[in-house]
Amino acid sequence: MKKILVIGIGAGNPDYITIQAVKALNKVDVFFLMDKGQSKDTLIDLRRDICERYITDRHYRFVEARSPERERGDVDYKASVDDLNLARQRTFERLINEEMSDDQCGGFQVWGDPALYDSTLRILQAILASGACAFEFEVIPGITSVQALAAQHKVALNQIGGSIEITTGRRLAAGQVSDTDSLVVMLDAQDAYHQVADRETDIYWGAYLGTPDEILISGKLKDVADEIERVRKAARLAHGWIMDTYLLRKP
Amino acid sequence: MKKILVIGIGAGNPDYITIQAVKALNKVDVFFLMDKGQSKDTLIDLRRDICERYITDRHYRFVEARSPERERGDVDYKASVDDLNLARQRTFERLINEEMSDDQCGGFQVWGDPALYDSTLRILQAILASGACAFEFEVIPGITSVQALAAQHKVALNQIGGSIEITTGRRLAAGQVSDTDSLVVMLDAQDAYHQVADRETDIYWGAYLGTPDEILISGKLKDVADEIERVRKAARLAHGWIMDTYLLRKP
Repeated sequence: MKKILVIGIGAGNPDYITIQAVKALNKVDVFFLMDKGQSKDTLIDLRRDICERYITDRHYRFVEARSPERERGDVDYKASVDDLNLARQRTFERLINEEMSDDQCGGFQVWGDPALYDSTLRILQAILASGACAFEFEVIPGITSVQALAAQHKVALNQIGGSIEITTGRRLAAGQVSDTDSLVVMLDAQDAYHQVADRETDIYWGAYLGTPDEILISGKLKDVADEIERVRKAARLAHGWIMDTYLLRKP
Repeated sequence: MKKILVIGIGAGNPDYITIQAVKALNKVDVFFLMDKGQSKDTLIDLRRDICERYITDRHYRFVEARSPERERGDVDYKASVDDLNLARQRTFERLINEEMSDDQCGGFQVWGDPALYDSTLRILQAILASGACAFEFEVIPGITSVQALAAQHKVALNQIGGSIEITTGRRLAAGQVSDTDSLVVMLDAQDAYHQVADRETDIYWGAYLGTPDEILISGKLKDVADEIERVRKAARLAHGWIMDTYLLRKP
């Protein structure tokens, strides 16, 4: 039986990797590299670096696959993600069918944790359900950028006894968030923190978390929102891409 | 300057520990052990085990402190937690003042991640704000039981583009949760999943995650809720304590 390991490699800092992930990396014969977009080269370099750093005495190889891009612009978000995932499903099927022999182990290295805003698990489950290929798979959790954010700001995500909502910039911009006192926003391409009504809200913002380029800003929205927008824009320009996240906490 | 490291040691499986945490453990002179309640012995054993496993060529010692217990019964929840945290703050101050010399490094090993339903960061920040003692501190994130749950069930926490709410059994029982399609419940002492109206909701439940005693159950609430209650009760009886968490996902 083919085996696939979906390995969370943490958010940025190679030291975020777990012992479990190190053991998993050392079982893999072929790593599938699926990144896309502007951050592609950096993220692929990080994956190769992690293998060089942690894999000992084992032969492994990389297969790079062109990852289909989501259609952008004036399209239905969910439908475009569904289309993208179907295209990625076909790509995964081809990789599993053509690039692994029956006794081999394939690996996907997932930035952060495979359970948080990543499609790999959903795609593998869909392939198994479709019967297009047979394999078993395991999931190895990893440190997310949300956890890196909290650790670097030395702050808890929840208030005492309170809830935490983890959401997307898209949902915050559309007003599709609850009234929770602790809101974590990921994947915000549009500076949606400007739309929070209560400007006394505290924001804990971080970009390139866990890397040498890390930037942290915190304070009340009324004091730091403009600074975050400015720093964010400049950093995106300098790096060609940005990966940032933030915690909003009611006063 | 005294230094304190707040080290997330992951949820249960010693392999969940990160390389960053291993490096941090190897800098600590004195570990403070603060567990309480029925799970005390098991959790303290796990912390000692992690030190033995990962610390090389370094002398370190443990200081066990009696952790004050929260007043239970007919009391205001937030007030009782505030009282508890004030009592713990005094205990932490004493430990930092009396058990560490100025050039030493103290360590708190936190189950899961220090940013999620743990008071250590809040207490240390309160001590610094009060000026009762001076120290610097760092936070090392760890794999939470939420991530272990998702990994073991091989399921993503979020739906495509959706939000996730992480909350407590207390809040679910009180109806203080949002209408999110992915709800993660922790610290549920009262089987609050019985109160979810839509019995077509999928539940992914796990106890003692990442340990040899791990139990996983998943399915629609209408099919598995009674089984979970039964298994949970029996496990709690057998172990003397239970630590469990679950994901509720709308159909």
